[in-house]
Amino acid sequence: MRRTITGFSNPTIKFLRSLREKKHRKASGKFLAEGLRLLTDARSSGHLPEMLMMATRRDPHPLIDALEADVVAAGGEVLEMGADLLAKVTGKDNPQAVAGVFAEFDTGLEQIRRGSAKIWLVAQALRDPGNLGTMLRTGDAVGAGGLILLDDCADPFSVEAVRASMGAVFTQQIALAKWDEFLPWLRGGEGQLVAASLRDSVDYRGAAYTAPCFLLIGNESRGLPEDYEMACDSRVTIPMKGRADSLNAAVAAAVLAYEALAALG
Amino acid sequence: MRRTITGFSNPTIKFLRSLREKKHRKASGKFLAEGLRLLTDARSSGHLPEMLMMATRRDPHPLIDALEADVVAAGGEVLEMGADLLAKVTGKDNPQAVAGVFAEFDTGLEQIRRGSAKIWLVAQALRDPGNLGTMLRTGDAVGAGGLILLDDCADPFSVEAVRASMGAVFTQQIALAKWDEFLPWLRGGEGQLVAASLRDSVDYRGAAYTAPCFLLIGNESRGLPEDYEMACDSRVTIPMKGRADSLNAAVAAAVLAYEALAALG
Repeated sequence: MRRTITGFSNPTIKFLRSLREKKHRKASGKFLAEGLRLLTDARSSGHLPEMLMMATRRDPHPLIDALEADVVAAGGEVLEMGADLLAKVTGKDNPQAVAGVFAEFDTGLEQIRRGSAKIWLVAQALRDPGNLGTMLRTGDAVGAGGLILLDDCADPFSVEAVRASMGAVFTQQIALAKWDEFLPWLRGGEGQLVAASLRDSVDYRGAAYTAPCFLLIGNESRGLPEDYEMACDSRVTIPMKGRADSLNAAVAAAVLAYEALAALG
Repeated sequence: MRRTITGFSNPTIKFLRSLREKKHRKASGKFLAEGLRLLTDARSSGHLPEMLMMATRRDPHPLIDALEADVVAAGGEVLEMGADLLAKVTGKDNPQAVAGVFAEFDTGLEQIRRGSAKIWLVAQALRDPGNLGTMLRTGDAVGAGGLILLDDCADPFSVEAVRASMGAVFTQQIALAKWDEFLPWLRGGEGQLVAASLRDSVDYRGAAYTAPCFLLIGNESRGLPEDYEMACDSRVTIPMKGRADSLNAAVAAAVLAYEALAALG
């Protein structure tokens, strides 16, 4: 059953808009994702929105119909609204024709199945949700298992992170942990921990990578704390030929991840 | 000589704020850059701001003093203002203590000295200023000569691009051109044109790269037009092991650029 929403002051619109703020996402346990491509990827990964929003004026599309049918069958809600309202919900001037509200996933370390992939990305105190989403996207591309977020990171369920992930938020495993939980967890099983580093490090190219390989990337401006780096099995450096002493965090993660992929196959 | 600005309605503040919009940047030929690190990099690359803005309350720093002395010696203007005004100028909640107004550079193709570097990045219809700035930053890191922007790209002098470049906007050569100008220019001298592509392509790893190597990356959602790809000397593919069929554009540029660096040294 479809419900049509027309007013900006509708309580559902207020709820949807509130999901752009972390505290409201955490309180409700829900997050927003937009775009047919993304919602279709979510669906084929077994994630259906609890609430599906569709622009009143939209081009008909069999994938939208399929999505709607599945959401209805699962007992979800379907809302139609004008493009102006949808823009208000997603915070995007040119909103896509569909968006959805999803339940946040379990982000406990214990649900990470380390043996399920050769590469894992680990980010520490990553502040930028765009970088976070881009790392998820890169993780998908290299066949990584997922992204482990250490200490105080941006929220993987923010609209910006979900958008930048291009759907990988639904396909990559995601865990949140403090360093003091992560390190014992890691050492409780197999796994090589490799830091992107400038300290006492070897060239990233041709370094020894062994699966499952956990690639650790530090904060955008401070890098990794020294004691974190020293607890790693190895430290690798990406050469810097110019004036700057660092790469964008998502770029560094990708350069390392593709090197690990070449080594581990 | 320092001037202190206190009012939000001051015409200089209005001018500075206007530089966040492309049309005003183009009309005045000026752009904004913020942060001591970035302004210091600019200074050591021979770029001084015509106008230096400093927060009234700031920690004293010898580099700020040096910058101020140089700006004054060059006949530039120095403005002091509250952090609230500086935030209004840069559009950033926590503004850095200094910012500057710079004259835009010549972005003609003819000023590109192709023999000065082994790697050049070329982006086509790149829409995201953050991706653009990140490519400049990566270009600096691999020792590239610069970034050539084809067709309708984001503005390299936007606040977001300058910020993401981390100073590389001052050290990388930047040119803007239409494809129809670029291709004859490229073929008028030495240079290999390599497209990031999925069509009729070889694995990016171990492909033949020769200097000067121009790495061509397409638009974020559409990739490269087919005829552009077919005009390239080679097409290389970055493997995609997951569900997605593409990487973030700045990530793809970095993975290719580091491969070219490994090949060309």
